[in-house]
Amino acid sequence: MKIVNGNFLNNVKGYTAAGVCAGFKKSGKKDLALIFSECSAVSAATFTTNKAKAACVLINMENIKNETTRAIITNSGQANACTGYQGYEDAVNITKLVSNELNIQPQEVLQASTGVIGIPIPMDKMEIGIKNICSSLSIEGGEDASNSILTTDTVKKVVSVNVEIDGKKVGISGMAKGSGMINPNMATMLSYIITDANISKDMLNSILKESIENSYNMISVDGDTSTNDMVLSMANGMAENNLIEKKDEKYFILKEAIDYVNTELSKKIARDGEGATKLFETIVVGANTILDAKKCAKAVVSSNLVKCAIFGSDANWGRVICALGYSGADFDPYKVDLYFKSAKGEVQVAREGMLIDYSETLAKEILDEEYITIFVDLNSGESEATSWGCDLTYKYVEINGEYRT
Amino acid sequence: MKIVNGNFLNNVKGYTAAGVCAGFKKSGKKDLALIFSECSAVSAATFTTNKAKAACVLINMENIKNETTRAIITNSGQANACTGYQGYEDAVNITKLVSNELNIQPQEVLQASTGVIGIPIPMDKMEIGIKNICSSLSIEGGEDASNSILTTDTVKKVVSVNVEIDGKKVGISGMAKGSGMINPNMATMLSYIITDANISKDMLNSILKESIENSYNMISVDGDTSTNDMVLSMANGMAENNLIEKKDEKYFILKEAIDYVNTELSKKIARDGEGATKLFETIVVGANTILDAKKCAKAVVSSNLVKCAIFGSDANWGRVICALGYSGADFDPYKVDLYFKSAKGEVQVAREGMLIDYSETLAKEILDEEYITIFVDLNSGESEATSWGCDLTYKYVEINGEYRT
Repeated sequence: MKIVNGNFLNNVKGYTAAGVCAGFKKSGKKDLALIFSECSAVSAATFTTNKAKAACVLINMENIKNETTRAIITNSGQANACTGYQGYEDAVNITKLVSNELNIQPQEVLQASTGVIGIPIPMDKMEIGIKNICSSLSIEGGEDASNSILTTDTVKKVVSVNVEIDGKKVGISGMAKGSGMINPNMATMLSYIITDANISKDMLNSILKESIENSYNMISVDGDTSTNDMVLSMANGMAENNLIEKKDEKYFILKEAIDYVNTELSKKIARDGEGATKLFETIVVGANTILDAKKCAKAVVSSNLVKCAIFGSDANWGRVICALGYSGADFDPYKVDLYFKSAKGEVQVAREGMLIDYSETLAKEILDEEYITIFVDLNSGESEATSWGCDLTYKYVEINGEYRT
Repeated sequence: MKIVNGNFLNNVKGYTAAGVCAGFKKSGKKDLALIFSECSAVSAATFTTNKAKAACVLINMENIKNETTRAIITNSGQANACTGYQGYEDAVNITKLVSNELNIQPQEVLQASTGVIGIPIPMDKMEIGIKNICSSLSIEGGEDASNSILTTDTVKKVVSVNVEIDGKKVGISGMAKGSGMINPNMATMLSYIITDANISKDMLNSILKESIENSYNMISVDGDTSTNDMVLSMANGMAENNLIEKKDEKYFILKEAIDYVNTELSKKIARDGEGATKLFETIVVGANTILDAKKCAKAVVSSNLVKCAIFGSDANWGRVICALGYSGADFDPYKVDLYFKSAKGEVQVAREGMLIDYSETLAKEILDEEYITIFVDLNSGESEATSWGCDLTYKYVEINGEYRT
């Protein structure tokens, strides 16, 4: 597997993209993005589990059933959530407008919205925006597209890798947004993974479903699951490898690459969490089951108290044990070994669930770094899991607590 | 039911208490509390679900099985959690020391610890402290006891009521602590409910188990479940009502009073949450089941985004709908009506899951108050639930994020 830098569309054959300003954001920043596959692609997706699903989620849940997909359109500024029947009608019209311009079927269009809840998308602006963006598609447009989906994200999030399958170069590129906030409303996580791999819809779906379990589902910024979260994937076959239609060696080569892209995008989202100054990962080993390992890892990165301790560079191992304890996982607290690690070194802070002598100076040095690992050995079984989170800071409260007029 | 002010021991016959400084806290504040029943009492308790239970929890789980209980001893300064076999030995010795001084059985002693995790209780100080406190018991000592269990709580939390059963005055008094933080470690919630009611152990247990579900289990400060949480209850029969031994009218009179005490203590704990400036309750009505109502109510008060919005006096109804949506409850988002209420009035902000026109000025006025109600009507069934939470503030991050040397 090779990691590729630069415009993420250069890495995948047969895709173009664009990002334009359609006027959805007051700031005047680019707010409409389109990714287009020049030929029929298969697609797979996962959607928010939130009961109050946005209109874009609802229509995608229908359109993802179609055998082929050609386009993903995204607006930032309005979430099209809690917008009722009108919101759904608007979503239907968006697919029609895009399909008309690109001469494809409406059900070949997927869409996402991110932004303020409860406010309808201004459809007059959308109509003009769609006309503009469909005539602006290019390979270079990938850059604009990846910027146009952002809200209060501070950096764009793009990852590209390629692998060799059947002697062919297969490219995989992903772009994501999260976890910003608009005028204040809830964060939304969007991620799009496109590849030129030749793969069946079933197999792409299988890879995506497994992959998100170990990436997006293992990050936490604030524990709030948005109404609009989604991960969309397209594969257009232009790499011309032999069709991947079962779980063979080729499948696992592609899966490893997609896993990598999803994991790296997840880490970028966590690092760019609202107000965050640090990214920390929690590696849990020695669990009896994968589920136990995941529960432990997720509880630690989701704990407000641990997040505050990371912000304060405080080796507060008691909070970590506490989070493990209420995670719902089965383990023996008196077998737990606990370490803090970073570029500055590592320090063991607890052995068999109890305090051990350690250098507080070294611990503080380690925790003052921007990337930190909390390493937990449950010393019970063979299962492992990793999660990612960010610190909880004054800035998070400022972003989400300030009343804006 | 009559609400009583003043020393909480004046309201219940046959109890004495004391609070002394044993030297567990560096601050020199009182840090050892004892409540004593002059005659045999029955007892009931609920304990933290955290897997990493503190030694005091483990020994109480044994001693609560005893038919009678006489004393509750509490130290603040060390949590006696993650202290291994030595910690358990220390807990055993605490019961022995108390029982020797008071001439009762070790298994008649319950105990709680709150404070730093992983640091052993200094048993030399405990030994002297127990001698002192056992000779200081008095009715007036209730005041000192309720202060001695506090950590960084900003106020003591005491509630007293009385009811009439069989023509006898039955008193119920409760004291609690939470959710403070010591040198930074996790918050612990402790609550003790004592009564002079004449009731069987079974029935007291039944009342307590039901009561905590609608009180302590419906509050959230930061979602972190401590290793040391517990609610302990004693009933010594000195009110001389006829024994309550089944779920008859007397049972429900007493239950209503105990519910009231637990609910009021819960609200006091939420209001005194770390860094909190406001208490908000979430009332959910119109749910299909009680469980759905509880899931909804708890999700709203636990959401960091809602907590920040309350801090910022921001009528951010989208965050409320979002929290309802991921609560796991079954409901139709397009039936939800949503109101914000306080002493300043009420404002409806969403109807049938969608934005309605409302006065932002009035909404801000309502949310600027110290006590706020979020009222949610799911418009589906007949079930209801109420939860309590506090806002998430800069101060919370400061308390939990500052590295202390």
